Amino acid sequence: MKEPLKLAIAGLGTVGGGVVKVLTEEAKRIEALCGRKIEIVAVSARHRQHDRGFDIDAFRWYDDPVAMAADPDSDVFVELIGGSDGAAKLAVEQALASGKHVVTANKALIAHHGTTLARMAEENQVALQFEAAVAGGVPIIKALREGLVANGIERVSGILNGTCNYILTVMETSGREYEDVLADAQKLGYAEADPSFDVGGTDAAHKLTILASLAFGTLPDFDQVYVEGLETVTPLDIRLADDFGYKVRLLGIAQRDGKRMELRVHPTLVGKNSSLAAVTGVFNAVEVVGSHVGPVMLEGRGAGEGPTASAVVADIVDVARGNIAQPFGLPASMLEEASYKPIKDHTGAYYLRVHAVDRAGSMAEITRALAEAEVSIERIVQRKDPIPEEDNRLPVVFITHDTDEVTMQRALALLAKHKDVVDEPLLIRIEQE
Amino acid sequence: MKEPLKLAIAGLGTVGGGVVKVLTEEAKRIEALCGRKIEIVAVSARHRQHDRGFDIDAFRWYDDPVAMAADPDSDVFVELIGGSDGAAKLAVEQALASGKHVVTANKALIAHHGTTLARMAEENQVALQFEAAVAGGVPIIKALREGLVANGIERVSGILNGTCNYILTVMETSGREYEDVLADAQKLGYAEADPSFDVGGTDAAHKLTILASLAFGTLPDFDQVYVEGLETVTPLDIRLADDFGYKVRLLGIAQRDGKRMELRVHPTLVGKNSSLAAVTGVFNAVEVVGSHVGPVMLEGRGAGEGPTASAVVADIVDVARGNIAQPFGLPASMLEEASYKPIKDHTGAYYLRVHAVDRAGSMAEITRALAEAEVSIERIVQRKDPIPEEDNRLPVVFITHDTDEVTMQRALALLAKHKDVVDEPLLIRIEQE
Repeated sequence: MKEPLKLAIAGLGTVGGGVVKVLTEEAKRIEALCGRKIEIVAVSARHRQHDRGFDIDAFRWYDDPVAMAADPDSDVFVELIGGSDGAAKLAVEQALASGKHVVTANKALIAHHGTTLARMAEENQVALQFEAAVAGGVPIIKALREGLVANGIERVSGILNGTCNYILTVMETSGREYEDVLADAQKLGYAEADPSFDVGGTDAAHKLTILASLAFGTLPDFDQVYVEGLETVTPLDIRLADDFGYKVRLLGIAQRDGKRMELRVHPTLVGKNSSLAAVTGVFNAVEVVGSHVGPVMLEGRGAGEGPTASAVVADIVDVARGNIAQPFGLPASMLEEASYKPIKDHTGAYYLRVHAVDRAGSMAEITRALAEAEVSIERIVQRKDPIPEEDNRLPVVFITHDTDEVTMQRALALLAKHKDVVDEPLLIRIEQE
Repeated sequence: MKEPLKLAIAGLGTVGGGVVKVLTEEAKRIEALCGRKIEIVAVSARHRQHDRGFDIDAFRWYDDPVAMAADPDSDVFVELIGGSDGAAKLAVEQALASGKHVVTANKALIAHHGTTLARMAEENQVALQFEAAVAGGVPIIKALREGLVANGIERVSGILNGTCNYILTVMETSGREYEDVLADAQKLGYAEADPSFDVGGTDAAHKLTILASLAFGTLPDFDQVYVEGLETVTPLDIRLADDFGYKVRLLGIAQRDGKRMELRVHPTLVGKNSSLAAVTGVFNAVEVVGSHVGPVMLEGRGAGEGPTASAVVADIVDVARGNIAQPFGLPASMLEEASYKPIKDHTGAYYLRVHAVDRAGSMAEITRALAEAEVSIERIVQRKDPIPEEDNRLPVVFITHDTDEVTMQRALALLAKHKDVVDEPLLIRIEQE
């Protein structure tokens, strides 16, 4: 039997507490799987006194996670503090510099500082594992780094934020307004008190940054992700999209286009019968298209104590078994500095919804304006019933043929000040299967 | 840079040829990922002369795969011969005894001889990898052995045979008969000339045996799987099931029930909106329910050159990187000899279809017979239109409440000889979500 693997865990919130519980409950089986014990030797958290359902005095206590990371009496530093900078970053750097393996659930940290940290891990010949950073309990990092490694990856996309998916699918089934559903999600613990990272798309963009790097062998570069949140989507749009055969999902999409990479997070229309349309509630799903395997989809819970702890513990077991790969698959020195395709170069179909003034001829005027803006329209629907609260507005939806983003944005600006248009028009990109 | 990893490949059919192509096309990237080259040094196949699209003279040739497995000048024996016994088994045993790692796509071999081979691999401290044996390119073995390792697994189930799923979903969309669709599948290369392993459920049972062992930490035991093929399902049943809100899929289901394991492969009704109902054509999907992570689903192509080669090459890369785990996760000596729940102890809802004689009162008689057999009926549908070709038959469908298998089989036997019933009645088990 090998020596036990000694862990120091920083952060004892929902996820940290979950990791302690899973390691305790599954200790016997994990020991058999690894051929060695996994022992928590030290912990650090913001508050020592706190009812966590387990006895904290069984472990050495540190007020300062950086000091804990420097202490030689542990093999693995488990970072569950969160945040792209501050204590989390300092502690992870300290741990790697001290020759400790690092397991983290911190998407922001890896999306912003992945390259530097991967280099440090490789120089020190230790692991830097972050399965829990993307899609919670779904083993997508391992799939990209190991299971699908035979493939050149052309595209990785999916539902990367459970809060957004919960809100959109509840809006879909209940017809309730965004703010109303968000408030519920907060009560249920599905959304943070400050939900802006989730609903604004930043969280999904962090995850997409990590997925793209693993999939394409490129340096992780958060700043290259185009991000739009879901705040502008209304129940009316969800209903109208349904009329055209679509569901609304907040997708993260990373795609190769020749030598350029396209990275974007935004509300998206997907076909009603697509796999992603079937993903509802707090579930996440990631689809990878590989050169040999074709499309592969992984789906499961993207957040919460159990799923996140499941991923963190899997990473710890990998370290215990000696399965230590380079953090991004390729050595950090070989990751490519990619060139990126900005959103203005995007081409695709669009859903464009305007509220027209309720008078004879307004729709014809708007349609003409769009034609003059060189938008090629595939289908138009005008709802016969005006919006109840404001009976002077008639929703009109245009579904376009493939059009480029610049043309669409120009048309959008035109319509926004068109005499027959009330309120802001809304544009949602469509992904065809 | 480490020494190259030397491969000997036995079997150069669709999958073997695919593996050679993938290793050639992806050589540069794989070398960067592994920090070493992967070299094919020897091959063996039934016929040396054969246009395979690559130059066979670049490798040492063996007529006998067992001799190749004994040759010390290779590190990994890649077995792509197939079959549970014969040359495949002899060669794999020889390779393991010679201290070589083995990578195989052979589900029958692992389902029947997994325990013995795992013991040999562990004694010789080599890998025995079989990702390609289950669900083709979908990395489900790795997910169970590594990615979801933190979880006690309660259930693993799914669509494990692409041929069956292709046939069922084409019957569903086209209304065509089984034999007709099977003939097409054979022309398209989706079904073998002798399709009995696929359509009879044996292939899915091989895969389920392997999944159950990995999921539950039990000795693989193919003989414990209850198997029913899809040959008895008619387009009429698919249509009638649809009326009740179900789709028909051939599922493999492995489930813990207290101390007993239930392993079964049979046609199954699943809810129209379930994830498995959304899996169509040659795709496979496996759902795992873990104690911490909850349900996780993986979906992708279950067969074919590219997907299968993708899985084989991923296994080879694992060996090249030194990621060598015990074949079934736990050491073979710790795998449990499980007790099994026979199909007669199954309880669940059932779809029961009979063809009633078209006369007043026949349906009442049949319903009464069922009630007397103590089958609790939830819903009944009698199609008003008799079957066109034989206008004396009226299909009647009963959906039962939870009932035990013994009661249902007794009722089935009763109905089969009932005076108002024509032809064999059909029973399909229902899986509720």
